[in-house]
Amino acid sequence: MNLNPIQLFDAESSTFTYILSAPGSVDAVIIDPVDQHCERDLSHLRRLGLKLAFILETHAHADHVTSAGKLRQITGAKAAVPSGCGIPPAEIQLNDGDVIRFGDGEEIHVLHTPGHTAGSMSYLWRGNVFTGDTLLIDGCGRTDFQSGSSGDLYDSVTRKLFALPADTRMWPGHDYKGQSVSTIGWEKLHNARLANRSREQFAELMAGLNLPKPKLLEIAVPANQNLGLVHSI
Amino acid sequence: MNLNPIQLFDAESSTFTYILSAPGSVDAVIIDPVDQHCERDLSHLRRLGLKLAFILETHAHADHVTSAGKLRQITGAKAAVPSGCGIPPAEIQLNDGDVIRFGDGEEIHVLHTPGHTAGSMSYLWRGNVFTGDTLLIDGCGRTDFQSGSSGDLYDSVTRKLFALPADTRMWPGHDYKGQSVSTIGWEKLHNARLANRSREQFAELMAGLNLPKPKLLEIAVPANQNLGLVHSI
Repeated sequence: MNLNPIQLFDAESSTFTYILSAPGSVDAVIIDPVDQHCERDLSHLRRLGLKLAFILETHAHADHVTSAGKLRQITGAKAAVPSGCGIPPAEIQLNDGDVIRFGDGEEIHVLHTPGHTAGSMSYLWRGNVFTGDTLLIDGCGRTDFQSGSSGDLYDSVTRKLFALPADTRMWPGHDYKGQSVSTIGWEKLHNARLANRSREQFAELMAGLNLPKPKLLEIAVPANQNLGLVHSI
Repeated sequence: MNLNPIQLFDAESSTFTYILSAPGSVDAVIIDPVDQHCERDLSHLRRLGLKLAFILETHAHADHVTSAGKLRQITGAKAAVPSGCGIPPAEIQLNDGDVIRFGDGEEIHVLHTPGHTAGSMSYLWRGNVFTGDTLLIDGCGRTDFQSGSSGDLYDSVTRKLFALPADTRMWPGHDYKGQSVSTIGWEKLHNARLANRSREQFAELMAGLNLPKPKLLEIAVPANQNLGLVHSI
């Protein structure tokens, strides 16, 4: 049965953070928490009577710093990160096909979806897929730095994400236009970058974007590779 | 079983809009949609493959204009509003104890919770209560205009809302501090205005707030009493 997550937003970097919980248990999981909102997120957990079991990262972000390290210290939750993202302090290094179990029988399935970064993962839970910066609503993450690859992203989306059931709810890592949630079925038919485009056409499109370098690249990536604990590097 | 709604936000008026749906049906309900986001909300329904059955208003808002009239015209959904809010064009005039049925056996229970306005309603669905401007996270709506009454609000919250199970998730009509969701149990113990305060103490607190008049009062209320269709009045 599809249970929506709680979706939280950082207006500065347009980043979504998600809290997952299921009836019958106080255990919760947070995906991609943002440093500046550590107290906000802890307040949500307190208000809802939830206990954080895992902190998940979809990748080593270049546009904001994670609060994973802080949340781990405060709550005792375990940090689980993609094995290919170079985040050694996390106790759980995830690989494609892994399953994270929490609460009363809840399962999060780990999908390796490289392209935005080589290590990027998506997480599948109860008919919801959390796609990080791999697949965005009507768009996708950039592929021009940090071990990105347009070919890999195309394959990840078209072979893995678009192979999920059409009614799978798709929760992105960012949105810049006030959108919140989509479905795999909709994106497969309508995504402005990926629907009805060949691998070659997609590579050409991505190569021509000429995006500016993220402002926080040199700060955020090393910090995130240490779970956001910048001062203890 | 608690199913979270989809929570959408209007950054201008800090208003939350909610989309409710349940597995096994394409029927959906929207609560307190905002005029400027009509297209955004329709896009969400399209992406999720949902069909709008009802548009609910918690009250006649003074700080933003509803898109209920437009959504009704476009989708054919029925508008359901509190009977005491003076919104004659809506086909369903709700009273305390009414039940709105949609989808495959979904029930929304109507609770009359006057105080912010005399007609204000809260809506209870699957362990979630949508409190409009009656109860906010760690706060409450103002009671100094539009038939507001601090005594009524105190009674609505302490006798009706705080009587719900402690783990009921509380989804407010606004938040101004980045908060998204709370629980009845938490608000009962910690709400800065209502926890541990007598009816008299609360009345004194509310009387001393001296809030400025909402900028949109004269525009929004008459518009909302016509389901937001300002030009057809």
